[in-house]
Formats: sequence, structure tokens, C-alpha cells
Amino acid sequence: MERFDAVDIIRAKRDGGVLTDAQIDWVIDAYTRGVVAEEQMSALAMAIFLNGMNRHEIARWTTAMISSGERLNFASLPRPTADKHSTGGVGDKITLPLAPLVASFGVAVPQLSGRGLGHTGGTLDKLESIPGWRANLSNEEIYHELGYGCGAVICAAGAGLAPADKKLYALRDITGTVDCVPLIASSIMSKKIAEGTHSLTLDVKVGSGAFMKNIDKARELATTMVDLGTDAGVTTVALLTDMSVPLGRTVGNALEVREAVEVLAGGGPDDVVELTLALAREMLASAGQPDADVEAALRDGRAMDVWRRMIRAQGGDPDAVLPTSRFTHDVVAECDGVLEDMDALKVGVASWRLGAGRARKEDPVQAAAGIEIFAKPGERVHKGQKILTLHTDEEDRFPRALEALDGTLTIGDSPVAPRGSVVFERIAR
Amino acid sequence: MERFDAVDIIRAKRDGGVLTDAQIDWVIDAYTRGVVAEEQMSALAMAIFLNGMNRHEIARWTTAMISSGERLNFASLPRPTADKHSTGGVGDKITLPLAPLVASFGVAVPQLSGRGLGHTGGTLDKLESIPGWRANLSNEEIYHELGYGCGAVICAAGAGLAPADKKLYALRDITGTVDCVPLIASSIMSKKIAEGTHSLTLDVKVGSGAFMKNIDKARELATTMVDLGTDAGVTTVALLTDMSVPLGRTVGNALEVREAVEVLAGGGPDDVVELTLALAREMLASAGQPDADVEAALRDGRAMDVWRRMIRAQGGDPDAVLPTSRFTHDVVAECDGVLEDMDALKVGVASWRLGAGRARKEDPVQAAAGIEIFAKPGERVHKGQKILTLHTDEEDRFPRALEALDGTLTIGDSPVAPRGSVVFERIAR
Repeated sequence: MERFDAVDIIRAKRDGGVLTDAQIDWVIDAYTRGVVAEEQMSALAMAIFLNGMNRHEIARWTTAMISSGERLNFASLPRPTADKHSTGGVGDKITLPLAPLVASFGVAVPQLSGRGLGHTGGTLDKLESIPGWRANLSNEEIYHELGYGCGAVICAAGAGLAPADKKLYALRDITGTVDCVPLIASSIMSKKIAEGTHSLTLDVKVGSGAFMKNIDKARELATTMVDLGTDAGVTTVALLTDMSVPLGRTVGNALEVREAVEVLAGGGPDDVVELTLALAREMLASAGQPDADVEAALRDGRAMDVWRRMIRAQGGDPDAVLPTSRFTHDVVAECDGVLEDMDALKVGVASWRLGAGRARKEDPVQAAAGIEIFAKPGERVHKGQKILTLHTDEEDRFPRALEALDGTLTIGDSPVAPRGSVVFERIAR
Repeated sequence: MERFDAVDIIRAKRDGGVLTDAQIDWVIDAYTRGVVAEEQMSALAMAIFLNGMNRHEIARWTTAMISSGERLNFASLPRPTADKHSTGGVGDKITLPLAPLVASFGVAVPQLSGRGLGHTGGTLDKLESIPGWRANLSNEEIYHELGYGCGAVICAAGAGLAPADKKLYALRDITGTVDCVPLIASSIMSKKIAEGTHSLTLDVKVGSGAFMKNIDKARELATTMVDLGTDAGVTTVALLTDMSVPLGRTVGNALEVREAVEVLAGGGPDDVVELTLALAREMLASAGQPDADVEAALRDGRAMDVWRRMIRAQGGDPDAVLPTSRFTHDVVAECDGVLEDMDALKVGVASWRLGAGRARKEDPVQAAAGIEIFAKPGERVHKGQKILTLHTDEEDRFPRALEALDGTLTIGDSPVAPRGSVVFERIAR
């Protein structure tokens, strides 16, 4: 491989230039090996943040990150694979009902997931509230379960996939270079392409509780990722979906598992069901089953059967009683009227402060902490009626959680408004 | 002191915001203490590089760097102090004759200097070619020499002055954030203000051999520094001077000392003499002697007397024979005509490659390496006439040094042109 000077590469991007393939290959490889120092990659990330990368640069950057580690081989499984990725939001438990639902149609669903950081919850944290369930599987266990077991796996991503991304992600977190489309897109797609899935459905969240606060930015991210996936031979589709209010009626770990099980039992809140079905249809269409009757699979218990097998395969007891919190606090309506807003970010921060989330990677989370939601924006409420119930194991967490909710949950005299679709747009090539 | 989150500060500058005084105070202090990590300061430096700082931010940033360390107290000396700083160039030995010249008028001249890095030479490296001379003095020795000795000191800056700047300078060097006016200006001025000089004359170089390649950028840097000095109560003046061709007729360490001694003996090349006199007049005017006859002090040996005392005070022998190189190589004119150019950067790089400069802080330099110049641009040359003599102790350095000169030293049929003034502009409040 050609050798470069890190400073020359930083300067090129700083001055608004386009990085060459050889420069990108070198800088990612040298960074992975520790030859390019953290402070140099940090300066480069900021230069990329402010000066951008073009489509070709992003594709090359992604490929270089894939090359930094191992590649999985889901393509060799006896079932088609359909992967899904959400950019993360508040109350986003969709993976839990979605993976078994799609797997119930004979499609393998690998969900290499993360833990929560800040106000967004993590899928693994949620499932760990199920007694006995474990997040870590070997590559062999993942292959076996996907190809010959229940067909769905939700587990921790191994350290071998795109190690350059792992380093860079941790660096971006402390250097103010997180919300940058080229870096987000390449981070997500490097891992998804490296695992070798046939198809990928992206749930790109838009709104206060999401990384992307407005639809233009979300569309840019979605388009970038769809391009990257398509160029790498992965059938890729993105949905832009609403994250201005929390998804469903629970935020937290055990609370969200409970709601996911309701959906698998044929019930659950409308928005969670709608999004689960929309994503399931996309995944199944990408896997060659455009006409699959996904609603039936929720209704008749097929998805629930896969869920139970999936939880058991990872040591969990699907019949175990989920943990409940030691303390609760109700937030009630102060007057009659229509609930006008419920800011996803504020609810996410409140839930985090109750103990459901973590500020640093190494912090523990409370399984039972979180928020139950009894009224959503656009619904009529009466004075004294419960809007939220806050849950935590540490009573002294209530004041700061309530502080986070300040300025939202206003009640006014707007007309009662039925909520629109959760899905705003579909982006595909 | 108020506490902040480094990421919030990085984000604020990244998004084009203005940092508050409290944010600047905190981030510089926390960086000095290691609480703000190198990679965080690196991202912030790149954000500053690309989004700038306003005059108030630069002043506060400078003050915060001063507060990170000790302050000297030259203000308490029994003589007025006049300091000088050059932004660095090729063949820039002006400090050597200038400091004793100004001191010969009873003005204290503290020159806390650096070593060369890259193609620009370092004043300390030059003086170290004098047998016995040592760069390190204690603060007490500096005070004594300035206040009660010969009045001029050229020595290494102690570690106590603006340690934040020391850390940041090293970081900028490896992260592509060097040539940024707010960061250059605050770096230079933090050290000068911290030493407590009464007045400061800045020599801001313009041209290929300088940091600032064009006059607009140089003027911006000069104005920023004059503002900073003035605001801090230091009488500050800047001259913008030519660095498109090397200064004088020598580049290197011992070679430049020899030329400096020629100037102190009343001779030397016109441009070196002109710049030495111009800077001396500014320094003396700032110190209350606007009518000092500086030419006389060169002519009659007063400046030379101070030079000899100054060198002896730091262990050097002013009568010692300076080292000479083991190998020389002449570059001669290939035809008759007028020498059309002599690019300062190319000559600087050639001298560096001959061994006069260093690529990394810890590299040694050759005392005798460098370049003698026998014709300057605008002068008529004849075929076979010597234009340069290259000096080095390692013969195998010649090819790469000659390579650096490629594309300059062209001979054409332009008319013979007397060179204009070395001083382009004067900037003061």
C-alpha cells in the first residue's frame, strides 16, 4: 500500500479537496493500526464534518472500513437474509417484534445490535431485562440460529466487524463529530455490508428524538446509505419515519419488552404496529416475498412462536415475569383540554435520567426504569388524568427526570387530531 | 471556575458560534490539566481553523493561555524592554545583529527564541554553532543580563511560559492546524505578553519562504497581533517584510552567524542591513528613542561590543573559528543573462536537506551545513559564474538538496532590476 503523511491528508480535506482512493485506504488502515494518531483522525473527522465528502469518497471510506476487519458470510446461509437498521429513537422497540415476524416467513434476520447511549435506548439493554437472556453469541452460534434455528438473532456485534469504525465511532462521540452524514452513513453501512446480508431495510428517524432533526437531513442520510448499499450489491431500501414523539406507549427496557410482546400477541399501540408491519413488508419484499401477509403472522401467533424460540435460544425465559420498578410517579393533566405535544427528546432524556439509559459506555442501566405513556398528542385529556407514569429503582431520580419534561406536555384547546402515518417517505433506487 | 463539557464547546465552534469567555477560560485550563483530551482540542482547533474566531475570542484565548503558566516581570527591570518577534523565514538571521544593536542604546532586549523546524532556521541553532555557547539560562540569569549586564539575551524560552501554548503548538503541528491566523497570533502573543515586555516589534514575513504566502493574509496576522498587544498594554508595531527570496547571502547556522558578524562590523548584505536598521528604529522608538542613530552604532563598533559581551555571557567565544563543512558543491550559471528568481522556500528546503534544519524536534542539525548565495534575483550573471555554494558534512545529501532547487534560479533576458525595499508596510494602532 502506498504511504502517505497524515497531515497532508488532513490538509487536503481541510482545504476542501477530494481525497483519493489511495489516501482513504491508507488513512483508515493506518488509523486502525495506530499509525495515524487519534488526534489526527479527530482533526480529519472535523474537516470532513465541515467540508463533506462526495459520493465516491463516502463509498471508498466505507469499503476501507469494511477491509479493516473480518467479513461474515450470511450470503451462504440456506435462507435469504434481510437485515434492518434503525438510526435510533425514543421508545423504538421495533426490532423486537419485527425480527421474529419476518423470520416466521422463512427469512433469516440478523440483528447485530448495540447498547443505548444518551437518550436513545439500546435493543440489547431492552432484551437483557428478560431473565437469563444473553447478548453475546459466537459467529458459529449466529450462523446456526439464522440458517437452521428460528431464523432470527438479536445479539451484540462481534469486535471483528469493521474495527476502524469501532475506533472512529468512539472518537466521534467525544469530539463533536457525530451528526455528520458521510460519517454516519459509512459507519452504519460498513458494518451491514461486512456482514454480507442480501438485503437491508433502513429506518431513518426524523424529529426531536432522532439524530436527524429535519426531513431534509434525514433524506440526505437515507439516500447516501441506499446508494452505498446498492453500490455494494445489497438491496437497500429506506423509510423516513416520525421520531418527534416517542414510539408507542412505553419508553425503557422491560417496559418496552412488554409492549413488544403485546404487538406479537396481536395487540399493541397503533404506531408500533404500523411501523413493524411497514418494515416487515419491505424486508420480505427485498427477500422475494412481496405479498407476504404479515398481519396474519401477528394475529395467528406465528411471529410469537419465533419470538419464544429466539429468546430461549439465547438463554432467556419468555415466560419469566419482567422486573418492575421500586418507585413510580404519575404526571397528571393540570386541566381539561387536548394534549398538544410530547417531545421525543425530552421524554428520552427523562427516561435516561430515571435510569433506563447511560451517560457512559461502562454505566449500568436499570431494567425496570422508564416511562409509561397514557395519552399521546392530539388526544383529549381531563384534569387529574394520568398522562405519564415514571418508573425507577432510585426515588431521588424523579426531580431531574421531571425537569427534563419541562416545556412539553402542554394542554390547550386545539381540536382533537388523529395522528398521521408514522412513515413519511420511502427511498429506494 | 465554571465547568463545561468539551463536546459542547467543540460543537459551538463547529456550528459557527462565538465562544464565551467562560468557555475559553475553561477549555484552555482543562486542556493544560489534561482534562480536555488531545483529540478534543484537535477537533476544536480544526473547527477554529475553518470557522475562525472574532477579535474578542482571540484576545480571551490569548489571555487564557497566558494564565496557564508563569508570567515574567521584565517590566520591573531598570531599563525599558523592547522585544522583537519574526514569524520566520529563510536566511533570517536578523535577531543576531539586532539584539546587541538595540541594547547598545541602553534598552533591554529579551529574545526568548526557538529552534528551527522544517525549512525555516532557528535562532538558537544558529548561535549554537559558536563554540561554547549555551541556549539555556535560568530566569535569574536572564533578569541579571537584561537589567545589569550587556542588556541583550538570546536564549531558549523556559517551560513555564504559556504551557497551554506549548501543548497546543505540538498538537497543531501534527493535525494540519498550523497556518490559522487566530491560532498563530494567540500562540505568539501569549508568550510575548506573558514575559511582560514594554514594547514589541513584529516582523511578519510575506512570500514563498514564510508561513503567510500573500500580503493580505500577512496583514491580517499582523493586525491581529498588533491588536492583541495593544489591548494587553504592550506597545506593538508590525512590519510586513519580503520573504520571497532568502534574506542576505547565507542560509544555514554557522554561515548566518558569519554574516551577522559582518553586519555588526559595519558591512553585510544590503537587505539584512536595511531590515536590521528598520527593526532597530521601531524598537528604539517604542522604547522612547525615536531619533537614535542606529547606523552609527553599527559603524563605530558599539553594537559589536554588546554582541561580544552577549556571546561571552552565555559561555560562547566570540573569537572562535566557526565550523566549516566537509563538502561543498557549486551551482553555476548555465548561460549569460539576468537571474530571474530565487525561491525562498526552495532554498530553505535545500538548506534543510543539506543538514541545516530538522524534520522532527529531536533531530540534530549540522552547524556548518547551508547555502552561500553569490547572486540575487535581478543581478546579471555570466555562464559558469557561481550562483550558490552548497555546504554539508554528508556528501550524499547533495542530490536531494539540488532536487529541491529544481524550477528556480532561472536565467533570462529580463532587464537588470535593483531590488526594492525589504519592508512592505508598517502596521500600528
